[in-house]
Amino acid sequence: MAFYVDEHIKNTERVFPDQGRYGMLRYDMNENPEGLPAWFVDEVKAEITPEYLSIYPEPDRFLTKYAKYVGVPRDCVTATNGTDQAIRYLLQTFCGQGHDVVTVAPSFEMYWVNCNILGLNHVPVAYNDDLSFNMENLIAAIGPNTDIVVLLNPNNPVGDAFSREDVIAAIEAARAVDAVVIIDEAYHYFYPNTFIDLTQTYDNVIVMRTFSKLFSLAACRLGVIISNPTIIHYVENAKLTFDVNALALLFGEKILDHPEIAEELIAAEREGRTWTIETLQEQGYEARPSEGNFIFIRTHRPAPEVAADLEARNILVKSWKSGMLADFLRVSTGSKAAMEKFVDALLEVDAA
Amino acid sequence: MAFYVDEHIKNTERVFPDQGRYGMLRYDMNENPEGLPAWFVDEVKAEITPEYLSIYPEPDRFLTKYAKYVGVPRDCVTATNGTDQAIRYLLQTFCGQGHDVVTVAPSFEMYWVNCNILGLNHVPVAYNDDLSFNMENLIAAIGPNTDIVVLLNPNNPVGDAFSREDVIAAIEAARAVDAVVIIDEAYHYFYPNTFIDLTQTYDNVIVMRTFSKLFSLAACRLGVIISNPTIIHYVENAKLTFDVNALALLFGEKILDHPEIAEELIAAEREGRTWTIETLQEQGYEARPSEGNFIFIRTHRPAPEVAADLEARNILVKSWKSGMLADFLRVSTGSKAAMEKFVDALLEVDAA
Repeated sequence: MAFYVDEHIKNTERVFPDQGRYGMLRYDMNENPEGLPAWFVDEVKAEITPEYLSIYPEPDRFLTKYAKYVGVPRDCVTATNGTDQAIRYLLQTFCGQGHDVVTVAPSFEMYWVNCNILGLNHVPVAYNDDLSFNMENLIAAIGPNTDIVVLLNPNNPVGDAFSREDVIAAIEAARAVDAVVIIDEAYHYFYPNTFIDLTQTYDNVIVMRTFSKLFSLAACRLGVIISNPTIIHYVENAKLTFDVNALALLFGEKILDHPEIAEELIAAEREGRTWTIETLQEQGYEARPSEGNFIFIRTHRPAPEVAADLEARNILVKSWKSGMLADFLRVSTGSKAAMEKFVDALLEVDAA
Repeated sequence: MAFYVDEHIKNTERVFPDQGRYGMLRYDMNENPEGLPAWFVDEVKAEITPEYLSIYPEPDRFLTKYAKYVGVPRDCVTATNGTDQAIRYLLQTFCGQGHDVVTVAPSFEMYWVNCNILGLNHVPVAYNDDLSFNMENLIAAIGPNTDIVVLLNPNNPVGDAFSREDVIAAIEAARAVDAVVIIDEAYHYFYPNTFIDLTQTYDNVIVMRTFSKLFSLAACRLGVIISNPTIIHYVENAKLTFDVNALALLFGEKILDHPEIAEELIAAEREGRTWTIETLQEQGYEARPSEGNFIFIRTHRPAPEVAADLEARNILVKSWKSGMLADFLRVSTGSKAAMEKFVDALLEVDAA
């Protein structure tokens, strides 16, 4: 028999991440290589009871705290099962079949995977060869068929950040053609500027945040969408009834109760990133800083080979077989202690 | 400005569950009122470390165990963020815009909410006035526009189960028009029969299971889809990259390691359900058994009023303002100890 299969889903090619990363040293997916303080995890675990586990999740308490934390009204936030899920909802809700989603390129690949799944037209706007980006090129790509413009800020994998002036220019260009702008702040905290305030002054701006990066809770799946009440209302129409699990909500809420944890994680990662770049530069490496918790290292030997040799030592980093980043390793950054392990191994497998 | 909003999402009316159920006695959403054994929860919590929390989820180990647990090949299962998410994926993948999703009615309301969100045509097939159901009526509703047929078995809220003969007749009628059949076994274990074997003998059968009911993990969001490799492949094309969180996977895996827990939960719920029905019948109530972890009670006073009086005592039950179940309370069932608290309160607020 030949049952119906949605043609876009049928023709999407998916690559799921390798399994078996536990026990490895992980610098490949921009997680925190070490994680949260043990005392904090123990404190939260004390509230995970048989009763708590048996009850369907209630996002309200977390969201009320979160709205206060970022300084917007309660009806301007909603939680999602990671920003993975937020991307899906936003593209499904605010882009019509065959309409355009304009993004910079390279950027986070799940934007175009979701375009494929949903039958949307992805319009990538390329970086220059020197990895600089001209916002005029993005603005020129915005047209009457554009429903959504996406800016990851700081951008991954490039690691640069967009200026306020450029972001506002993009928002106004999008607004002129009735398009919304998604500003994905996954790497906020590593880079202090935010555009959350623009969600309250423009009617077409959506900011996303995740608890997977600085907050070290990638296992939990917790993302937040911040926008105006109209946009949040439509996203909630599209949501699953029970989207975010109650353990993510519990960990998320408790982190907001301990703002000193964020400060300590920011300081530790900043120290580790700076130390790594300086140390590698002293060793004759081109080590490119970023505005996120990752750096780029131009290896002496071909980068994919260095990555493979590191993996043989249980150390995971990101490399590309082709494209403008093919000469580099992308290495997630954490505390100095975490980075020393990486640098020692790199110097062994990639001798000049 | 007037940005694009998907018309189906725009026009969907959503009702999210009340918040603040913690600390109440919960018999309204068919959770386990008590939850898992404390020793088991402690055992799993010992594995929730800062490192574990920081790593993106890896479903493979859970799914390998799960496939073995239900006796199908590994490529016949995939995990979802609750069956809530499974319903969304299946409808989105296997039903075209404006095509038919045929279900019995009443049944689990998220099937038609998802039809609304996705622009699918919901075809409800009604129970008889005496709450019996004729499978011929469902089969008569299956036609050339049908892409999906849904059977919840046992069905909620009615609480009856479909015979193997009836289910096979529905599968064959669906197959004749190239439609797939979703058999939602959310209430399996309370009712021992399963149709998982039919996923291996028919090419159009999908079975769903949840960890929210017997396994008492509603907070975690863990569902499983069981079908043939072709259907699982298409669902995986539609999935988020990180769908199920790693804590759900951990709890799910550990439950499979302890099959005695399922046996004990089944026995405790069965005893509680039987005791409740017998006790209420002795008190002159019409107490209708079901094949799930819930019963129907025809109250002396109007059921919504009784429900409100119970809620004032911090006891939650389900009632309907209209429809064929309006004279009844639906009460989730757990151990005898859990049910004694409910029965004591009911007898106080609903004196004959």
